[in-house]
Amino acid sequence: MNFTGAHILSINQFQRQDVERVFAVADAMQPYALRKKVTRVLEGAILGNMFFEASTRTRVSFGSAFNLLGGEVRETAGFESSALVKGESLQDTARVLSGFSDVICMRHPQPGSVADFASASRVPVMNGGDGANEHPTQALLDLYTIRKEMADKGRDIDGLRVAMIGDLRYGRTVHSLSKLLSLYKNIQVVLVSPIELTLPEDIVEHMRSAGVKVTISHELADGIGDVDIVYSTRIQEERFASKEEADLYRGKFRLNQAIYTEFCQPNTVIMHPLPRDSRADANELDVDLDTNPNLAIFRQTDNGVLVRMALFALVLDVVDLVDQYSQDVRWYNSRQI
Amino acid sequence: MNFTGAHILSINQFQRQDVERVFAVADAMQPYALRKKVTRVLEGAILGNMFFEASTRTRVSFGSAFNLLGGEVRETAGFESSALVKGESLQDTARVLSGFSDVICMRHPQPGSVADFASASRVPVMNGGDGANEHPTQALLDLYTIRKEMADKGRDIDGLRVAMIGDLRYGRTVHSLSKLLSLYKNIQVVLVSPIELTLPEDIVEHMRSAGVKVTISHELADGIGDVDIVYSTRIQEERFASKEEADLYRGKFRLNQAIYTEFCQPNTVIMHPLPRDSRADANELDVDLDTNPNLAIFRQTDNGVLVRMALFALVLDVVDLVDQYSQDVRWYNSRQI
Amino acid sequence: MNFTGAHILSINQFQRQDVERVFAVADAMQPYALRKKVTRVLEGAILGNMFFEASTRTRVSFGSAFNLLGGEVRETAGFESSALVKGESLQDTARVLSGFSDVICMRHPQPGSVADFASASRVPVMNGGDGANEHPTQALLDLYTIRKEMADKGRDIDGLRVAMIGDLRYGRTVHSLSKLLSLYKNIQVVLVSPIELTLPEDIVEHMRSAGVKVTISHELADGIGDVDIVYSTRIQEERFASKEEADLYRGKFRLNQAIYTEFCQPNTVIMHPLPRDSRADANELDVDLDTNPNLAIFRQTDNGVLVRMALFALVLDVVDLVDQYSQDVRWYNSRQI
Repeated sequence: MNFTGAHILSINQFQRQDVERVFAVADAMQPYALRKKVTRVLEGAILGNMFFEASTRTRVSFGSAFNLLGGEVRETAGFESSALVKGESLQDTARVLSGFSDVICMRHPQPGSVADFASASRVPVMNGGDGANEHPTQALLDLYTIRKEMADKGRDIDGLRVAMIGDLRYGRTVHSLSKLLSLYKNIQVVLVSPIELTLPEDIVEHMRSAGVKVTISHELADGIGDVDIVYSTRIQEERFASKEEADLYRGKFRLNQAIYTEFCQPNTVIMHPLPRDSRADANELDVDLDTNPNLAIFRQTDNGVLVRMALFALVLDVVDLVDQYSQDVRWYNSRQI
Repeated sequence: MNFTGAHILSINQFQRQDVERVFAVADAMQPYALRKKVTRVLEGAILGNMFFEASTRTRVSFGSAFNLLGGEVRETAGFESSALVKGESLQDTARVLSGFSDVICMRHPQPGSVADFASASRVPVMNGGDGANEHPTQALLDLYTIRKEMADKGRDIDGLRVAMIGDLRYGRTVHSLSKLLSLYKNIQVVLVSPIELTLPEDIVEHMRSAGVKVTISHELADGIGDVDIVYSTRIQEERFASKEEADLYRGKFRLNQAIYTEFCQPNTVIMHPLPRDSRADANELDVDLDTNPNLAIFRQTDNGVLVRMALFALVLDVVDLVDQYSQDVRWYNSRQI
Repeated sequence: MNFTGAHILSINQFQRQDVERVFAVADAMQPYALRKKVTRVLEGAILGNMFFEASTRTRVSFGSAFNLLGGEVRETAGFESSALVKGESLQDTARVLSGFSDVICMRHPQPGSVADFASASRVPVMNGGDGANEHPTQALLDLYTIRKEMADKGRDIDGLRVAMIGDLRYGRTVHSLSKLLSLYKNIQVVLVSPIELTLPEDIVEHMRSAGVKVTISHELADGIGDVDIVYSTRIQEERFASKEEADLYRGKFRLNQAIYTEFCQPNTVIMHPLPRDSRADANELDVDLDTNPNLAIFRQTDNGVLVRMALFALVLDVVDLVDQYSQDVRWYNSRQI
C-alpha cells in the first residue's frame, strides 16, 4: 500500500506489512504524544474534521493528533449544521470541503457514505466511522494496543489467543479487529456471545480461511480462561425484546474483578472499545477493575492518538520530517500515559 | 474605500476600484490556497467566527481562509449556544466578543443584525450573511469567478452578458451580484424567472440607471442562448402554494446537459451559489453537468477562500507582508484546484 | 498554593497571596491581550475546552486566552455530543480526554462534576462552571476588575465598600466574590435583595467571621449611596410564583442613569456578571448607562481574558517564559480595551 495521498476508508485496504508500517510510525510518535518533544512539521496544514454525527472522543482524538503534528483543525460537529440537509450530495460536499483543507476526517451515520465522499474529494479522506460499516482507526488502535501489551510480556501478535465477549453481531469494532487479526499467524479467537448476537458467519469464515482457530462459546467462564486478551463489548438493550431480557444477558457477560480472579489467568489483558457504561445496572465492565493493571482500556484511547498521528504523517508523507521540525516542550508536563 | 480596520457589511460599500483591489489581492493568495507556499503572517491573530445560524460551507471557508494566513479561529456554530437567547443585545455581544479576537465574522438570521453588531464592535466585522439582507463575500466570490472564467477566454467583466435563472426575488446572491455588475460597463443581464419570483423592481432600476441592459424573460430557452454566464439559483418549494406548483416551475427552470447542448452557446459558463439540491426530483442543476468543463460551481467555492483571504489581508493591513512570512509546504500536496 | 500542575476548581483554594499572584501575572498579560505583542510560549500545547453546557462567552474567553499564549484549542460545545449520554462516568471521560490535551477547561451543569472529572484527569483541570456550585475564574475576574477600577482612583481592595444587588441567593458569582473579598481587610458589604433572594446565611457568616462588615437591606436606595462598587445581578423570573411578582421585584432593583444620579456617589463603579438582559421589560441594568464611564461591565469581560491567561501560564509554569517567546504584532490593531 502506498500511503502517500491515499484515502483510509476500510481495514480491507491493509496488508500485514501496511499495518506494521503504521505501528512503527505510531511508535515514533510517542515522544510527541507524551510531550517530551513538540513537532511543527504540519505547521500551516489544515485538517477538515467533519463529524456529521455526534462524537466527542473520536473527533477530539483526530483533532489533537493533527495539532500534535503542528497542523490546524477546522471542524463540524453534528448533522444539523450541514448543507446535506438541503439535499446536497456527499460528492458535492466533498468537492467543496476538499477545497478548504489538506486532509479530511469524516464520520457520517450512513454506511458507505465516507467512501462516496472520498470519491469526489481532492484531498485524502480518513473514515472516522460510517454507521455500522467501518471505523478503521479504531481497529488499528485496538491491534496496536494488543501489540504493545504483548510486547510488554516479550510476546508478539503471532500466536495470540483472544476472547471477544458480548455483542459480536452488531459491534463493528470486533468485525474489523477480526479481519486485522487474520493477517497474523497462529491466532486463536474465542467468540463468547448470546446466541442472538454471534459474530456474522462471513467474518468467522474469513478468519478460518486465513488460518485463525475460531472457537464459539455462549458461556463467559468457558471463553476467558485460556487467553491473552479479553476484548469486551457492550450488549445494547435495543437488540432484545425487553430490557429484562437484555439485563439477563448483560449479567451473564459482564466482567468484574471477582470474575476475573476466578476465571482468567493472571495478567490477562482487558480491552473494550469505550465508552464504557459505568451505571450501576450496566453490567458491562465493572469499575472495580480500574485498579487492575491489566485493564488496558485507557491505554487504548491513548494509543488512538499515536495511530492517528501515524496515519496523518503517512498520508501526508512527512514521516521522515517529523523529528526535523521538533522543538522542546516549554510547559509543565503532567502527562503520564 | 480604506480597507484597513473597516467592517465589510454590504456590497454597497464597494466601488469598482475597491472590487478590483480585492480581486488583485485574491490573485496573490492563490499560491497559498493551492499549497505551493505557506504564510505565517497572521501567526498569533484570532478570528472570532461567530455563526449564530447553521452553516458548514461558509463557516469553514472563512475559518480556513484565516488559517491559511497563519491565524487561529475561535468559533460558535448555532444559535442555541449563545447568550443572545438570554436577552443579551447584539451590541453587548459585540462589545464582549470583540475583546476576544482581532477580527470577527458573523452570520445571524436577522436582517441588519451584523451591522448592529458591528456598530459596537472594537474590531473589524465581516458579514457572513444576515438573513435575506446581505452576504457580501458570496457576491464578491461570484464576480471574482466571473472575472477568472472570462479571463480564461481573453475577456474582461466589461461587456459581459449574463443570464440569471430561477428565484430572483428572494435569492440574496443575485441581488448582490446585480449591484456589483452595475459597477462595470456594457453589461447585459437577462432575468429568467417565474412571474412570482422576478427580481425586485428597485434592483432592476438600479442596474438600468447604471447603464446595464436588462431583459426580462420567463422562458429558459429565450434567456440562455446568447450569454457568457448562466447563473442558476434554487426555486424553493415554500415560495409556492403547493409542492406540485413548485415542481412545475422547477421543471421549467432546470438545467441539464441536454438543455445546455440544445440552447446554450458552447463554453457558456454555469454558476450556482451552492448548495445544489442533487436529489432526483430537485430539477435544479443536474449532475450530468458535472463532467462539463464549463460548470464553474466548485471553482466558485474554491475562489471563496481566495476572496476571504484577500479581505482578511486587506482589513488587517498585511497584504504587503504575506510573502515576507512565507515558507515551504512540507507535506504531500494533493490539491488540484 | 503551588500553581504548577494544579487543578483550579474552587475559589476556596485561594489565599490572599494566591489571588495576588494571579493578578500580578494578569497584569503582565495585558500587552498580549492588547495586541502590542504576540507570544508563542505555548506553541504546540493543546487546551481541551470541554463545555458540556451551552456557553459562548466563557468558552470563547478560555479558548482565546489559550490562543493568545500560542496554544491550540480542541473543543466540545454542548451536552448532546458527548459519550456521557451513553452512561460513561465523568472519571472515564476524564481519563480519555486527558490523553488528548495538556490542560482541560470544563463546564458541566451538575454541581461537583468538574471536581469528579479532575480526580481522574492526568492533566490540570480548570472549572468553567459546574452548575450552581462554582465558577472560580468569574470570581477572580470580578475581583481583578475591582482592583483595577480602584487602582485608577489610587485605592486598594482593602477598605473597599461594595453593594451587591439583586438575586444574592442563587447567583454563584456573588457567593464566590463574597468569599474572595473575605481575604481582604476593612471590607464593607451591603447586601440588597428581595427577602426571598437574600445571600445564604453561611456566606454571610463566612464574611463576618473574616472581619467583613456586612449590612443587609431590601431597598435599593439605602444600599447604593455610600459604596465604591455596585455589583448588580439578574433577578430571574423562575424564582417567583409568577412573572408579575418577578417584574415587581425587578422594577425595584433595576439600575439606570436617573437612579444612579439620584442615589450613587459620583464615580461609583457599576459591575454585572453578564450577559445583561437588554430587553425593554428586563429592568436590570439599563442601556442608558452605556455612556457612563463608570460602567465597568465590558472591562470585566476583557479582564477575564487576562485572568485566564494568567491561570494557564501559572498552571503550565510558563510565566517566566512568556516574554522570551514574544514577537511583534504584524497586523492592524483596532483593539482599544
